[in-house]
Amino acid sequence: MNTIESLKWRYATKKFSDRKVSAEDLDKILEAINLSASSTGLQPYRIFVVENPSVKESLGEGSFNSQIASCSHLLVFAALTAITAEHIDAYMLQIATQREIPVEALSDFKAALVGGILSRKDEDNAAWAARQAYIALGTALISAAELKIDSTPMEGFDIEKFDSLLGLKPLGLTAVVTLALGYRDEEGDFYAGLKKVRLPLSQLVSFVK
Amino acid sequence: MNTIESLKWRYATKKFSDRKVSAEDLDKILEAINLSASSTGLQPYRIFVVENPSVKESLGEGSFNSQIASCSHLLVFAALTAITAEHIDAYMLQIATQREIPVEALSDFKAALVGGILSRKDEDNAAWAARQAYIALGTALISAAELKIDSTPMEGFDIEKFDSLLGLKPLGLTAVVTLALGYRDEEGDFYAGLKKVRLPLSQLVSFVK
Repeated sequence: MNTIESLKWRYATKKFSDRKVSAEDLDKILEAINLSASSTGLQPYRIFVVENPSVKESLGEGSFNSQIASCSHLLVFAALTAITAEHIDAYMLQIATQREIPVEALSDFKAALVGGILSRKDEDNAAWAARQAYIALGTALISAAELKIDSTPMEGFDIEKFDSLLGLKPLGLTAVVTLALGYRDEEGDFYAGLKKVRLPLSQLVSFVK
Repeated sequence: MNTIESLKWRYATKKFSDRKVSAEDLDKILEAINLSASSTGLQPYRIFVVENPSVKESLGEGSFNSQIASCSHLLVFAALTAITAEHIDAYMLQIATQREIPVEALSDFKAALVGGILSRKDEDNAAWAARQAYIALGTALISAAELKIDSTPMEGFDIEKFDSLLGLKPLGLTAVVTLALGYRDEEGDFYAGLKKVRLPLSQLVSFVK
C-alpha cells in the first residue's frame, strides 16, 4: 500500500479483536518511528511499549478509551520536559560516533543548538519536544496501516497517572500522546464501516498568488 | 518504496536544484496531508502553498534557511489560534453532509467536543492545533519521499512575517511549521551524502514489564 491508500484504510479503531501484533511487525513500526524527522535531529522523545495486560488495565482505568486496555500493544510517546546541555552533548557524541568524525568538527552546529535551544524556557522546549513526537506519531500511523495493523491515537488520558505508572518523571519525560495498536473487531466496531470525513481539499489548501 | 525505505531515503535537504515539483505530485502530497489523522478529526490547521518566486524570496529574506526561497514549492502549515463554537458547528455540518446523516444524530459527539475543547484556554487549544499539524507534517515527509521528492521541514522562521505576508491573522491562523519541497542538488548539497544519525533503537524504545 502506498501512503494515500494506507491513510484511506486506517481509522481510529474503537474496538480491537484479541489478535496480537507480532514482534516482527512491532519492530518495523518502531524502526519507522526512529527514522522520523525531528527538529535539529535531536529526537527529544522516547517510546514506551506496553503489552502487559495488567499494566494496560491500570493505565486505562477510569478512561473513556477502552482501547488502552483492549489493544495488543500500547505505544506511549513521552517527550522531554526540559532540554539540557547534557542532551546536546550526548547528541553531538552520537553524531560523531555514527559519522566517524571528531566531535570537535561539530562545534558550529553545537553552538547553534546551544544558542537556539538553551536560551528558551523549559516550557517552550517541552512544547517543542511534544510537537516532534507528533511527527513520529504521523509516521507510526502510516507505518502501522501499511502493515494492515489498526491503531488509535489518543490524547485524552490521565497524564499524571501515565507518568507515575511508567516512571517517566525521573527520566525527565512526560506522556504526550499514545497509540493503541492491534486489529479491528470488524463486526463489533460500528466505526469500521463509516465514511472518512475530511475537509474538501479546497478548504484545507490555499494556493498563494 | 515502503515507509521505512522512504524515511531512509529522505534527509533535510539544504540545497535544491531548479527542477520543479509537478502539479500532479503536489496534489498527491496535499491529499495525503488531508487524510492525516487529527484529534477528534477537527483538522485545526490549513496549508498554504507558495510557488511564486517573489513571495518565497520575501518569506526567506533574512533567514538562514535558503531553502525557503530556493525550493520548488513551500508548504506553510498554519494552525488555528483559537477554537470556537463556530468551528465545531461547521465540523458537525461537514460530518452530517459527508455521511448523509442528520446533524442532530451528532449531538453527543458535539457535546463532548464543546465540553472538551471550549473549556480550555485559547493558548492551550492553539498548542493542541499546532501538534495536529505536526502529524500532517509527518505524513507529508513520507508522502514526498515516496514520490522521490526532497523536502526540508523548517521551524526557525519569522512567524510574524509569515503571518503578515500570507494574511493568516484575519483567518485566525498562525504559521507553525513549513516544508520546502523540491529536488536535491546532489552535487551541491554536502548533506546529501551524510549518514543518517539516529538513536540506537534500544535508547529510543523501552519495553514496559
